[in-house]
Amino acid sequence: MLAPVKTAQHRLSPLLNPQSIAIIGASNNGARIGGMPLAHLTKFGYQGQIYPINPKYEEVFGLRCWPSIEDLPAAPDLVVLAIGAADVLPMLKRCAAKGTKAVIVYAAGFAEEGEQGAQLQRELEAYVATTDLVVAGPNAMGFANLNTQAHTNFASVFNTAPMQQGQGSVSLLTQSGNVCAAVYAIARRLGVSFSHFINTGNEACVDFSQYLEYLAQDEATEVVMGYIEELRDGPRFIAAAQAFAERDKLLVLYKAGETDKGSEAVRSHTSALAGDKAIYQAAFKQLNIIQSNDFVQMAELANLARYRHLSAGKRVAIITISGALGAILADKFIGQGLEVPTLPEDLQATLRTGIPDYGMVSNPVDVTGNVVNDPGFMRTALEALAQSSAVDSIVIYAPGYMLDRMANDLAEVSAQYTKLFIAIDTGAAQSREQLRASGVPVFSDIGVAVNAVSPFLLWQERRKHNTWRQAAKPAVSECAQLPAQLNEYDTKKLLAQFQLPMCDERCASNADEAVAIADAIGYPVALKILSADIAHKTEAGGIKLNLHNAQQVAQAFADVMRNAKAYAPNAQIDGALVCTMESGIAELIVGASRDPVFGMTLTVGLGGVLTEIYKDVSHRLLPVNTSMAREMLQELKAFALLDGYRGRPRADINAACQAIASFSNAVLALQEQVQEVEVNPLLVKEQDQGVRMLDALILRNHTTHDNARGCTTTIA
Amino acid sequence: MLAPVKTAQHRLSPLLNPQSIAIIGASNNGARIGGMPLAHLTKFGYQGQIYPINPKYEEVFGLRCWPSIEDLPAAPDLVVLAIGAADVLPMLKRCAAKGTKAVIVYAAGFAEEGEQGAQLQRELEAYVATTDLVVAGPNAMGFANLNTQAHTNFASVFNTAPMQQGQGSVSLLTQSGNVCAAVYAIARRLGVSFSHFINTGNEACVDFSQYLEYLAQDEATEVVMGYIEELRDGPRFIAAAQAFAERDKLLVLYKAGETDKGSEAVRSHTSALAGDKAIYQAAFKQLNIIQSNDFVQMAELANLARYRHLSAGKRVAIITISGALGAILADKFIGQGLEVPTLPEDLQATLRTGIPDYGMVSNPVDVTGNVVNDPGFMRTALEALAQSSAVDSIVIYAPGYMLDRMANDLAEVSAQYTKLFIAIDTGAAQSREQLRASGVPVFSDIGVAVNAVSPFLLWQERRKHNTWRQAAKPAVSECAQLPAQLNEYDTKKLLAQFQLPMCDERCASNADEAVAIADAIGYPVALKILSADIAHKTEAGGIKLNLHNAQQVAQAFADVMRNAKAYAPNAQIDGALVCTMESGIAELIVGASRDPVFGMTLTVGLGGVLTEIYKDVSHRLLPVNTSMAREMLQELKAFALLDGYRGRPRADINAACQAIASFSNAVLALQEQVQEVEVNPLLVKEQDQGVRMLDALILRNHTTHDNARGCTTTIA
Repeated sequence: MLAPVKTAQHRLSPLLNPQSIAIIGASNNGARIGGMPLAHLTKFGYQGQIYPINPKYEEVFGLRCWPSIEDLPAAPDLVVLAIGAADVLPMLKRCAAKGTKAVIVYAAGFAEEGEQGAQLQRELEAYVATTDLVVAGPNAMGFANLNTQAHTNFASVFNTAPMQQGQGSVSLLTQSGNVCAAVYAIARRLGVSFSHFINTGNEACVDFSQYLEYLAQDEATEVVMGYIEELRDGPRFIAAAQAFAERDKLLVLYKAGETDKGSEAVRSHTSALAGDKAIYQAAFKQLNIIQSNDFVQMAELANLARYRHLSAGKRVAIITISGALGAILADKFIGQGLEVPTLPEDLQATLRTGIPDYGMVSNPVDVTGNVVNDPGFMRTALEALAQSSAVDSIVIYAPGYMLDRMANDLAEVSAQYTKLFIAIDTGAAQSREQLRASGVPVFSDIGVAVNAVSPFLLWQERRKHNTWRQAAKPAVSECAQLPAQLNEYDTKKLLAQFQLPMCDERCASNADEAVAIADAIGYPVALKILSADIAHKTEAGGIKLNLHNAQQVAQAFADVMRNAKAYAPNAQIDGALVCTMESGIAELIVGASRDPVFGMTLTVGLGGVLTEIYKDVSHRLLPVNTSMAREMLQELKAFALLDGYRGRPRADINAACQAIASFSNAVLALQEQVQEVEVNPLLVKEQDQGVRMLDALILRNHTTHDNARGCTTTIA
Repeated sequence: MLAPVKTAQHRLSPLLNPQSIAIIGASNNGARIGGMPLAHLTKFGYQGQIYPINPKYEEVFGLRCWPSIEDLPAAPDLVVLAIGAADVLPMLKRCAAKGTKAVIVYAAGFAEEGEQGAQLQRELEAYVATTDLVVAGPNAMGFANLNTQAHTNFASVFNTAPMQQGQGSVSLLTQSGNVCAAVYAIARRLGVSFSHFINTGNEACVDFSQYLEYLAQDEATEVVMGYIEELRDGPRFIAAAQAFAERDKLLVLYKAGETDKGSEAVRSHTSALAGDKAIYQAAFKQLNIIQSNDFVQMAELANLARYRHLSAGKRVAIITISGALGAILADKFIGQGLEVPTLPEDLQATLRTGIPDYGMVSNPVDVTGNVVNDPGFMRTALEALAQSSAVDSIVIYAPGYMLDRMANDLAEVSAQYTKLFIAIDTGAAQSREQLRASGVPVFSDIGVAVNAVSPFLLWQERRKHNTWRQAAKPAVSECAQLPAQLNEYDTKKLLAQFQLPMCDERCASNADEAVAIADAIGYPVALKILSADIAHKTEAGGIKLNLHNAQQVAQAFADVMRNAKAYAPNAQIDGALVCTMESGIAELIVGASRDPVFGMTLTVGLGGVLTEIYKDVSHRLLPVNTSMAREMLQELKAFALLDGYRGRPRADINAACQAIASFSNAVLALQEQVQEVEVNPLLVKEQDQGVRMLDALILRNHTTHDNARGCTTTIA
């Protein structure tokens, strides 16, 4: 029998850790939605006050049943509404009048079901906004606090999955009741103990990010396994995820809708705007959230989180009794982004003292089946690995009795050192529990082990270095005010204020001026039409390159003016830009655009049509500093072209990183004023020769956002 | 008690299906390598004759023990040598003298262990070549025929994994004893019953392909799960794999060494030459072998093979009780290369009769939890799907009791129609065995299900269309004889004989001839140095493009001659090639090179440095016809560029396919004479304008291959 835990009060505490619960629409039938929460509450020993409410009954599940909420002797923390959609709003008003703090709405028939339902949901939202009520759902399966057994759900999985013994620290937070139940069942089979079981339903008044915020501060929660279809509040989500990182909690999220077909299936029952899946992926990585697409992997990660106090990272030593298994594990770990470094010579020498010639000492290490005959050597080998600064974590593969023979040594070394050891046994070792108790997780399947261990070690690695913080919104006074119209020259000059380098270039309003500028900056030059109304200068015949003398410049000026007027007779033309011809190693696209979920995000890629086809780009949330910019460039497969590919000269990567960070500053300063900012191309010259903006574009934000903060200027 | 099966005799029959077995080095200790096979043979009821041999014992495992092989009353089919490496060769001679047919050599200390061991193995091979003996190993764990319980192994996994009841039809064939044991243990847990358990050891006399050949014709084997580090005989492997396809047997192979580190670990204990992993992958796909990198997936595929008589393919209908699970499954299946087509309107209409508005009818289909209240509808829905020509296979996700409610309908529809239905239940459905018996495989994990079902359905799909056959080696008389030296023009003319189109181009030996040719073919022209000794014409300053008049052509001729002589003073220069300037949509590389395992293989990719970085190429074994050529082009991510990317004109894809098939013919005709053939670039022009070889290269084969067949010309 468990007593409700009294923790620090949070707005959602009455919902997720209620001291008293009323069920309106209570039923004696445990298979009905009004009966199932009562069945769970009574069966699993909830210690708070339970108020079944239904005028038809005197008693349900052995509890006094009340005719109406008004009859209750006290206001309940939480009311569960097991009633139809049409009755919800009037009942909410009665709950508020009674003084209840929180309500869960089970009923479907709201935003997920056509325009009529959407209207009903808007009315519910509008009413709740006038109260202090916290309302979960509608269209929700309810919650369970497994540490207090506060069941406010109609989830039949609690009838079939064995109930945990004792307290749990893993919470489930999903945008689908079916996923919540499926993951719960799988994780229970794998021995995970839970704190909260939460599915968010339609998120009319409380969205995913607010639950996440609660779980970040919840002392009973160490790990969250989440399932997302679409987020409604990106900035709040980011802040909650950062709170997880700050408190060393592990966040594992499944994001559905990765393919067009999956996304279509998600949209058909989700009213939120679709964010770009690549941006989700980038944001998760940047926030050190493990993105999973497998329920078993999620549950195994929740189990692994117990060992997160141990020292670990991405450089793995692999110890096997078989060359083949060593090769297999090396292939798999490297495929998942880990490193399997060749061991230093002194460590190899130590290993060579016990390993026969036909084994391997370099990593993967094949101690061979002979280890069975020399168990003392394993102690030496494991200690040497535990002490080595060349590897962060050690994975041991040995089937059944082979693992048992080395189990004592392994357990003792693991207990003595802080480094994480992981064991894989595809047989039936007797020593599994002994090892787990000594801090050694044991897996029984190679694929499952690799799928859980790899992201866990990468998470540990990023945890060491992750210092990124979401940008604060600047005050209005800090923002540059954009002029109404921006041509290429204006745009470049604006970005140049943030230290993005321009070519030597100036604006000419007639041919004579153009020639004078060319004479001043030196030949050859390029000449480009300058008009905020002409986006596609090449199509308009508005660009002339490689002009070698005054005559060519004058002719080019005349040509582009004539072409532009023919192409766009009504365009406002500001003259022509005369610039030095520049050459370099590669051309980058550096852009920022507005994601419906995460807001302005930065994208870097190599210019050209193949980059687009291969989707070889890197995304980040703002702000991006120079070291993040370097990571972005290194993420590109085409990075090789910047880095001296096949004997070519290296590009000025430092200058490119500086320019990307400067670009990030510019975008942050412009904020809500812009919809899209792009430097395309950013020419990256040879080492020590810097970068140049060859073209740049700013698209102003022409819509007023309801949630726009900071310095929004909207124009018609 | 099982009697040895008498099947058609094959050279390996005495090894894999022996009627009598002698163990030399027999021991009473079941933990020793000389005792374990006897323990297994007696415990599991082998019915053939068993002859333990060891002068130290009168009796082992209740069997009469013989002092020497010479004392046996009859020659045994198979002798197992549980003796040290140094004693093997003399004992082999005694076995041969006795008249035994086959021998298994357990001993390590051969090619896997340094030069001394390699020498010992060469001696063994040389001796065996003079006899009719079939010798397995050395360094092998032995075999098991699980249908006769002929255990000739020292695999302790048979002590721990539960022995199957009855006959099995799945064979294991691995190049690692540890992998063999690990996969066996996993597959037994998943209910797989086995025919053969084979690990090949060092493959001194019998290699992987020969075992595979045996299993292709073995009536007891329907499925093979294999593990490969390196193949020794590519052509024989191909023939065996084709025999699998012809007999509708399923071949699933794990190939280790996918990363440099994994490959290094493999090499350290394998003496075979490393083939290119991309070529392995292409060959597997072409031979309709399922490539797996997960032991559980292999075992699940072996189980799925039972249902391979049912009609199936890559267009999947997904039926769930949850929109979220529908989205998840769609994401996963599409990610694995299957299709989740939108259902035709009439089928959607049928589904709409039973599915509420908040469900989904398009695919994925969300019947919603309401189906529980209307089980009759499921029968209608399943029948409509079984009859529809729009989908090939149907996957149903429903947890526990939900699946049970529709189980009768599902079982009956499955039994009535030939289409494959697959069920996934993450709960604890009672109906699993009922469904399996009706031809519906049931999975309990989504990830496991997708990982097994996807390659199985793709295998079924390819099985419908696969008609490729390995090229027969041409007789000597069919082969073109290569001249000693081939410059660009010679090469193009040679390839043109196989219908590969050239530009309008001719060879000029002086400037006047060059001008005359240019006048004849029309300006603008290109002019290129012609020399078999200058491979890098651009670097040598040997190419001049866009020459518009006679003066430019004459000047260009003088320039390239001067440049070439400065670049390579000793090169033999055959003049200059004058060709029309051609433009088109894209440039392909079409090449053939010699893989150490599979021989000449064909590669197609887009030209340029990014293609190289993105590894966007497609490989095939020869011959390649036009429809395979089309598949190769469509495999390229850059295919979009040929296919009218963003409103550009489409390329002449038909001509490109024809050229690739012609190239394949050319390479086959040249056979062993060449090491590498490349058309680079092959210009693909606009639709109906064909293709042109812009450059081409043949590298002659300067080595004599021991196993070269057909018309080999070797030059110094």
